[in-house]
Amino acid sequence: MSASPVVVEVTRGPLVESRHRGALAIADAKGRIVFALGDTNSPVYPRSAVKALQALPLVEDGGADAFGFTPAEIALACSSHNGEPAHVEAARSMLAKAGRDESDLECGPQPPARDEDRCALRQAGRVPGRIHNNCSGKHAGMLALAVHMGVDPKGYSTADHPVQRRVRQAMQDMTGAALSADRCGIDGCSIPTWAAPLDAWAVAFARVATGEGVGKGRAAALKRIREACLAHPFMVAGSGRFCTQLMERAGPQAFVKTGAEGVFCAAFPETGLGVALKIDDGASRASEALMAATVLACAGLNDSQKAAVVPMANPPVMNRMELRVGELRVAADIRDRIAATMR
Amino acid sequence: MSASPVVVEVTRGPLVESRHRGALAIADAKGRIVFALGDTNSPVYPRSAVKALQALPLVEDGGADAFGFTPAEIALACSSHNGEPAHVEAARSMLAKAGRDESDLECGPQPPARDEDRCALRQAGRVPGRIHNNCSGKHAGMLALAVHMGVDPKGYSTADHPVQRRVRQAMQDMTGAALSADRCGIDGCSIPTWAAPLDAWAVAFARVATGEGVGKGRAAALKRIREACLAHPFMVAGSGRFCTQLMERAGPQAFVKTGAEGVFCAAFPETGLGVALKIDDGASRASEALMAATVLACAGLNDSQKAAVVPMANPPVMNRMELRVGELRVAADIRDRIAATMR
Repeated sequence: MSASPVVVEVTRGPLVESRHRGALAIADAKGRIVFALGDTNSPVYPRSAVKALQALPLVEDGGADAFGFTPAEIALACSSHNGEPAHVEAARSMLAKAGRDESDLECGPQPPARDEDRCALRQAGRVPGRIHNNCSGKHAGMLALAVHMGVDPKGYSTADHPVQRRVRQAMQDMTGAALSADRCGIDGCSIPTWAAPLDAWAVAFARVATGEGVGKGRAAALKRIREACLAHPFMVAGSGRFCTQLMERAGPQAFVKTGAEGVFCAAFPETGLGVALKIDDGASRASEALMAATVLACAGLNDSQKAAVVPMANPPVMNRMELRVGELRVAADIRDRIAATMR
Repeated sequence: MSASPVVVEVTRGPLVESRHRGALAIADAKGRIVFALGDTNSPVYPRSAVKALQALPLVEDGGADAFGFTPAEIALACSSHNGEPAHVEAARSMLAKAGRDESDLECGPQPPARDEDRCALRQAGRVPGRIHNNCSGKHAGMLALAVHMGVDPKGYSTADHPVQRRVRQAMQDMTGAALSADRCGIDGCSIPTWAAPLDAWAVAFARVATGEGVGKGRAAALKRIREACLAHPFMVAGSGRFCTQLMERAGPQAFVKTGAEGVFCAAFPETGLGVALKIDDGASRASEALMAATVLACAGLNDSQKAAVVPMANPPVMNRMELRVGELRVAADIRDRIAATMR
């Protein structure tokens, strides 16, 4: 396998200390790849970056309406959240509306992301539960889908359950890629993660951006999901989190969603583009900087939005004395090549 | 810059999900490079992997004896610790013996690594301090060195202070490399970090392993430092930490020390070899697996020690449901090439 290009450099003093390689695809809704960097044809596990696609059946099949899910709850179904009190409360509300509770969740327990929430649990003599899992909103949505489909929810997280078969079919339709068992892994929260090329994920997100080529009902569902996330960026991630901050700063021109192991997807409604990227080594710091640079170049931001996003593509490395000792930066040639996409 | 080889792969289900590239040098005390992988000639910031070298002046100049530092305290001077109660207590003891206190530390505050210690502070209404910084033992040692040298300790963390000049000279002697200002960064704890090739750091650690070619007094100091760390692996890192566990399992044949951004150094007294490695992208999970594989191949372990270390070179990827969903593994060709060094 040939080496991907260096996309993000981490400096310290006069030297580049670390380097991240990666691949990036940008597509339009016609299925054209308008920019490709590195190997965008090999299968990549999309992990949590495609939660908006995984939530599509819940919305387009009427489950979200049947249970009266709010936009904030739909955003939570697409989230990798911090397990903050507001996230936990929204997940519990979704479960209650679907007539289930957290004992039905099949995601496993996870401590909340923030110290204050973990310590509050500890001080109360409680242990982190499934409801605190960053995927509890997605799982609550999948449980609701099972109830709405009229099938036994038990085992909803396994690949052969009707819920996962429905989710897989929706992702196949959206990507145009075959999602096959020989390219299927198990995600951190135990649902299947189906690998497909970055090219295919980028096309799917161009469709999230535009609703083109997917039929009216699906286009409406995609718009509703996208707008729910953009209206509730806190619900998609949480305090201090990159996805939340990037959407708050970029505004409605950029729906973005991170995934584990350096994956990141985005939909840019203003320019009609979809993005999928993967850092070879799995580092989030690099996927974040590269996504911020892509948003800057391709999402159609205005000048004040751009000014707010610039620091996210080029964050400082700070030390324990609050000294700036280096920086993360997108490699200059890569930044130029992404920018050239829009000319 | 040409790409380093892939040294560690992270699998999930049937696919390799992420890949880490890196470079590795193994040297003997005569200064011969017995194995080199990737670019071992370009400057690398050694970060915390060389704390044993930074502690050398404190021991060889008599400061450790003048203040009555115990072996556990000498190990703490070489540590990147968790800020657990035993670490904090030992750092306070060192400071008291040198007639200083934690307000003299110039490392900046850092929360303890473990939830229980962070929450205990929070519950007591306290904030993390300099004493909890993972480098507080090294800083306490440097403060003690200043007092022992009879110089004003203030500013001991800056490159032109007599303490850092003394430390830099010791590292130049040990590596045989020029440590120059145009290759100097500022570390997380604010002391200078001097970049040198992996080849040079490997030679320095071969000298840590053997004491060859450095004079009697220095050889005795190196032996004392190495044996202090090997006798107190908990003090070098802490509960659940890789360095601690690897030394506990490998026994006296392997002194190992990690550093930020994917650096790892080791000294193997049994085989007389020194090791320095760097993962290009800075990932600790990869530097750890590669170091464990190097210990297995080159440190002269017996069969029971090997059996205990094998899982550290090939750890599972577990998910939130405690399912094994993948693994980290050293690339097969790399493992074979390292093993061939000893034939």
